[in-house]
Amino acid sequence: MLKLYHAEPLANSLKALVPLKEKGLDFESIYVDLHKFEQHEPWFVAINPEGQVPVLDHDGAIITHSTVIGEYLEDAFPGTPPLRPADALGKARMRYWNKFIDEHVLNYVSMHGWHRMVGVIARSIESGEFEKLVARIPLHEQREKWRTARSGFSESELANATRKILLSVDKVEEQLGKTPWLAGGMYTLADINYFTSCAVSVVRMFPDLGIEKRAPRLLEWIERVRARPGVKAALAMPDKTNPALRTFSGEVR
Amino acid sequence: MLKLYHAEPLANSLKALVPLKEKGLDFESIYVDLHKFEQHEPWFVAINPEGQVPVLDHDGAIITHSTVIGEYLEDAFPGTPPLRPADALGKARMRYWNKFIDEHVLNYVSMHGWHRMVGVIARSIESGEFEKLVARIPLHEQREKWRTARSGFSESELANATRKILLSVDKVEEQLGKTPWLAGGMYTLADINYFTSCAVSVVRMFPDLGIEKRAPRLLEWIERVRARPGVKAALAMPDKTNPALRTFSGEVR
Repeated sequence: MLKLYHAEPLANSLKALVPLKEKGLDFESIYVDLHKFEQHEPWFVAINPEGQVPVLDHDGAIITHSTVIGEYLEDAFPGTPPLRPADALGKARMRYWNKFIDEHVLNYVSMHGWHRMVGVIARSIESGEFEKLVARIPLHEQREKWRTARSGFSESELANATRKILLSVDKVEEQLGKTPWLAGGMYTLADINYFTSCAVSVVRMFPDLGIEKRAPRLLEWIERVRARPGVKAALAMPDKTNPALRTFSGEVR
Repeated sequence: MLKLYHAEPLANSLKALVPLKEKGLDFESIYVDLHKFEQHEPWFVAINPEGQVPVLDHDGAIITHSTVIGEYLEDAFPGTPPLRPADALGKARMRYWNKFIDEHVLNYVSMHGWHRMVGVIARSIESGEFEKLVARIPLHEQREKWRTARSGFSESELANATRKILLSVDKVEEQLGKTPWLAGGMYTLADINYFTSCAVSVVRMFPDLGIEKRAPRLLEWIERVRARPGVKAALAMPDKTNPALRTFSGEVR
């Protein structure tokens, strides 16, 4: 029995939902309402002490972190369709990209998303109440991120994040000049990772950066990823985000 | 034919050397002299555009990043001894730790190492010459790290790094109360990762933190890892570091 604890179909939650949908695996969807900070409730922290979604529960075994979940699903359900190359070198190419995206892309897109969406939410909470909410967040870095979202990220932090995002856009554009998908000839977890961590929202989030002109192959790849049955099904999952705050998530509707 | 481009047997170079030695694989060792900044020379950047060691060359295919290299060696040479669990859940446990170490440990130990060792080297270079050396470093973050090492990391950066290192010490200590190795019942790439990224030098680097008392299981585990034939063989590789600068690397002698 598979269960996925997840939030809206974007970022890390989307990244875990896509392979489940691509593989046509039956799973119980358990929605964790981040708008109500359910991920920091004792019942959830008992499941994942880090207080973060997504979480996969497979017959009681708990697997956290979306990159690890993706590889786990390949190992446990290698069947149709495979989302990881069969050969050692292909796997290495996929993992190179996953590592790059996890370490050099995700947090920078997330910073802009938090700046626009979570910052608004954080500032709408009265300060005594806010400190109470922050105090129960398990991870130090997440507590800092909530406080910074409330007080506002600095211009230089945001500019550095934009620089990192553009660097990834150029790197992906270059790769797509050599191979149809990031890790080579097949659609893999690396494509799902870059799509869900960045590409799904990057054009809409940064209309001034001219990404359409800068990265035409990326744009064409986005359409190919979006046409994947698993991506379509995952993007069709409910989104309870306040429509006024959908600068980050709106692209996927 | 396997070739490994690597530097001294510590940190990421050690992390790639250990599985090669554990598996008894024949490989050509190509020493890259970081003291002479060979990793930024055009000949090396032609092999790895990121200008970093280690790099594995397998019959002309280039694989970079030590975590990716470790998994690649498992995929390409699954034979004796395996360094990755055979079951899906064991693999996920191993990857959870690898991700934690790569994202939350390595850079913080590295900062203290750079503060003590690379900072001394960087300050010994005349400033016009220094800027020329930095200008040819491919990665932005590495250029920034060299400049910061020269000017000095701030007290708050170093204190935060120490906090992260201690958090990892406590996390590993807790895990070793449940399982003999990080990912469960067997010695895996996760043990190699924590050992080479942190544990090999942490007691010596932070004598004031009382790690022996704080983490007795970690200390016992360090001895078990150190006794591994692959670890012994890798640690016996040449170290050209100036002995006066071995506050970081000295532990392994």
